Amino acid sequence: MGGNLEPAIGEWRQCLGQGYVCTDETTLNHYARSTQPRGTRPAAVLRPQTRDEVCTVVRIASRHCIPIYPVSRGKNWGYGDACAVTDGQVILDLSRMNRIWEVNEALAYAVIEPGVTQQQLHDYLAAHGHRLWLDVTGAGPDASVIGNTLERGFGHTPYGDHYQCSAGYEVVLADGRTLTTGFGHYGNAEASYIYKAGLGPSLDGLFSQSNLGVVTKMGVWLLPKPERLLGFFFSIPEDDGLPEVIERLRELRLAGVVQSTVHIANDLRVLSARQSYPWALTQGATPLNPAVRLQLRKNAGLGAWNALGAFYGSREMVSAGRRALKRSLAGMVTLKTVNERRLRIAEAILPWLNRLGIGGRIADQLRAVRPVFELLRGTPSSEHLAGAGWRSRNERNSKSFDPLDNGWGIYWLSPVLPMTGTAARALLGIVEPIFQRFAFEPLITMTSITARALCCVLTVAYDRENPAESAAAQECYDRLFDAVMEVGFIPYRVGIQSMAGISTSNADVFWDVVGTLKDALDPAAILAPGRYNPRRFPQSP
Amino acid sequence: MGGNLEPAIGEWRQCLGQGYVCTDETTLNHYARSTQPRGTRPAAVLRPQTRDEVCTVVRIASRHCIPIYPVSRGKNWGYGDACAVTDGQVILDLSRMNRIWEVNEALAYAVIEPGVTQQQLHDYLAAHGHRLWLDVTGAGPDASVIGNTLERGFGHTPYGDHYQCSAGYEVVLADGRTLTTGFGHYGNAEASYIYKAGLGPSLDGLFSQSNLGVVTKMGVWLLPKPERLLGFFFSIPEDDGLPEVIERLRELRLAGVVQSTVHIANDLRVLSARQSYPWALTQGATPLNPAVRLQLRKNAGLGAWNALGAFYGSREMVSAGRRALKRSLAGMVTLKTVNERRLRIAEAILPWLNRLGIGGRIADQLRAVRPVFELLRGTPSSEHLAGAGWRSRNERNSKSFDPLDNGWGIYWLSPVLPMTGTAARALLGIVEPIFQRFAFEPLITMTSITARALCCVLTVAYDRENPAESAAAQECYDRLFDAVMEVGFIPYRVGIQSMAGISTSNADVFWDVVGTLKDALDPAAILAPGRYNPRRFPQSP
Repeated sequence: MGGNLEPAIGEWRQCLGQGYVCTDETTLNHYARSTQPRGTRPAAVLRPQTRDEVCTVVRIASRHCIPIYPVSRGKNWGYGDACAVTDGQVILDLSRMNRIWEVNEALAYAVIEPGVTQQQLHDYLAAHGHRLWLDVTGAGPDASVIGNTLERGFGHTPYGDHYQCSAGYEVVLADGRTLTTGFGHYGNAEASYIYKAGLGPSLDGLFSQSNLGVVTKMGVWLLPKPERLLGFFFSIPEDDGLPEVIERLRELRLAGVVQSTVHIANDLRVLSARQSYPWALTQGATPLNPAVRLQLRKNAGLGAWNALGAFYGSREMVSAGRRALKRSLAGMVTLKTVNERRLRIAEAILPWLNRLGIGGRIADQLRAVRPVFELLRGTPSSEHLAGAGWRSRNERNSKSFDPLDNGWGIYWLSPVLPMTGTAARALLGIVEPIFQRFAFEPLITMTSITARALCCVLTVAYDRENPAESAAAQECYDRLFDAVMEVGFIPYRVGIQSMAGISTSNADVFWDVVGTLKDALDPAAILAPGRYNPRRFPQSP
Repeated sequence: MGGNLEPAIGEWRQCLGQGYVCTDETTLNHYARSTQPRGTRPAAVLRPQTRDEVCTVVRIASRHCIPIYPVSRGKNWGYGDACAVTDGQVILDLSRMNRIWEVNEALAYAVIEPGVTQQQLHDYLAAHGHRLWLDVTGAGPDASVIGNTLERGFGHTPYGDHYQCSAGYEVVLADGRTLTTGFGHYGNAEASYIYKAGLGPSLDGLFSQSNLGVVTKMGVWLLPKPERLLGFFFSIPEDDGLPEVIERLRELRLAGVVQSTVHIANDLRVLSARQSYPWALTQGATPLNPAVRLQLRKNAGLGAWNALGAFYGSREMVSAGRRALKRSLAGMVTLKTVNERRLRIAEAILPWLNRLGIGGRIADQLRAVRPVFELLRGTPSSEHLAGAGWRSRNERNSKSFDPLDNGWGIYWLSPVLPMTGTAARALLGIVEPIFQRFAFEPLITMTSITARALCCVLTVAYDRENPAESAAAQECYDRLFDAVMEVGFIPYRVGIQSMAGISTSNADVFWDVVGTLKDALDPAAILAPGRYNPRRFPQSP
């Protein structure tokens, strides 16, 4: 892999300017940072600002046979961060491409570049008085909207399935040509950003989770601000109760009663967003013993599992939804709901309760509700990301929850299950003992990303400053990965560490074909070698 | 194009048996039938029953360089019927592959083969007591579910966008290998049919509207029978009222109030499903003059435009939806609703009204409502198809509405617009004069296939037995096609007559790439040459 870097660097500098082609140690070290024990180290970092620059950059790379690895903002936490699959690739950092080309109020979409962050789009919509919300993930304010969409990430609203809510990709190919998916390649098309499939083969899918092109523009659908937003949450006291709740939720999702994604997190996953591992309480011992876990759960007013979702719509719809959900879960859980008005009142009363000395636990709970409620209406928050610092022994710095700035160690693994209680129970039966074997706490969420599919996110949080724990985390992740593949709960995405492992058979035509497509579109294997393309995995140099 | 047919025929006969490899004149003539003035004529017809047979058939075709053209049931009315894009291809008729492999009640999906018809799946669900509905199109009971899905057709329920509601394709490639999309290529995957994208590039789109593979199995999502179904319909008295109604409907669709597709048909399109052109009344003259049109519209109790949709859900949800829709359209139209109970009562009363001599017009309207209501809950009907016989001078045979059996002439053209009143008005302003110029009646529907996209279906109905009228119809279609392409209202699918015309520029990278993908996956161009692949359009022999 790889040709002669020096002449390419010279040409890139001519194209982008000196300042946007970095090969200095500081920059390379910065990009090599990872939430995994070891990141990969790039050969250089390029920071183009326009699509045309990307075209030129790619042509230069092709000519010199230098692999380049596009990242939108490099916030792919727990899945490889800003690192290429292998050492020595040139990072194509698209963060300067952060134009918002269009926001269409009537048709409720935005056209953006890969450098646009969740916070940026949120602020833009607010500043321009748009009555439109974006669907945000828990990946924090600085994460790229396009980056997440291309990895097929998910959020919290009825637009929670990001890939399905995007259309009209502009893609730079390995030879520097620009392709537009959907109708957009017809220069005058009126429906470029509102109808995903276009005419003829639908090619969006080729450029999601792939190394076949560099997406430089995309339409993303926005949620018109509803008449009412009603957040709901409830706790499932014990593990036993989870399967039946999942059955009920599936029925409500299938019936269109609940149109948003529903996130169900175990006690530890919720706790991890609020606090670090209780080092003092446990006198430094890991893993958490069950009695302490129960105590923490109780103190925080949590159940074994804790669900969050929302109703969006007219007053009547929201109220009909709430009643149906309540009926369905009656006798199993206590449904709590929150809207902006009630939340504001509670927040206003809080200082008074505090003065009377009775606000303590309620105040904690209330502080936890606000960022979660904000997520439901498209305000990014970094609170969820804080869970990545669970096993860190350093003081939690409330100013930044950036896992790389904090040196936090996490692996994320995200198997997809059919949305049944049986599948959920089976998964837990498989993964919890593995966490236990390696002395990690199982931090787990299960999200109903569609009515039929439940996506689990398993977090292996570890202390990166502890080499033994880091090694154990890697081993734990590997065993979890093998185990979910073995039973057919395939992840919806994987980190760079698993890119070689996603082909579990030499006779899998699917991956053969993905390799053939790579040969056809990028014969010199310039773009992101190894990414979601196990048959064309780069040889070690 | 094409190698030596005879040896291939021999090998196919060995594989499929004599009876399933047809080269006799009768069969070839049968398959050459078309709703267009001239169909294409196949060199042979193959009728495999299993996936393995398809693999062998394809391998034989590849070896002998014989183009084969898959059709599911051959009911692609108005878009080419069972005909290949060019003469001399071998039709691969998949209608014998009609197994229903699985119906999953809890997760609400079916796994079927391409020969499964709408009626067959409907009857199967009923016979096995499943509380699941399929979403049906107006293409009639004998149309293939998979065929329509691969062409990205649409129906009537919240699952109206068929392609988006399918997952896990089994695809035979040109070299006879079998690929499975989504998670299904992992042999043990648990979420093969419930999560569309899978891991890595999502390849479903490659095999919809394409000639890159033969889809032999697919998961299709079914709608759990809702607590309530409430059909709604209303008339817009004059053309002027249409744009504002479209604006309101978009808002309701975006707000999740209306979750089903909504079909809006002009007076003529509705009339055409109920009766032929009024030859007697007009003394044989065409086109219909405006006064007669108004009279017919009035007699049938229709508006200039006539909308149909439905609410699905709990009693409360349905009722909240009905109120919101009524409020939104207040002062513009009168909303009428229908459910099973009310429809039955009306049908029971009808004979009595008839006896009293006051049932005539109401009876007509009621007869029109039933099949439409049935469509809303997944019962296929051929009533809509009858519109294809609008210009036929033969007596309408109520036993069969098969356009080919009846020798009816139609072209369908289906541009996609942003769902705005402005776009709808613009389209009508462009296409209506073209219909008029060629002396055809504009039969038009506009369907909100998603919250943002309006798909228009323009029908050019003509008398196939009249050569001059046939020629005019072809010219009319061509001008309509040019006109919608010119203004950027690109069709969501096209018929075989437009496959060469979908590339409007020699500099369109999209079609270049589709050609490259073809070369990579089917280098000998065996599969359906010319279909959605203008850069690899077969040369005339």
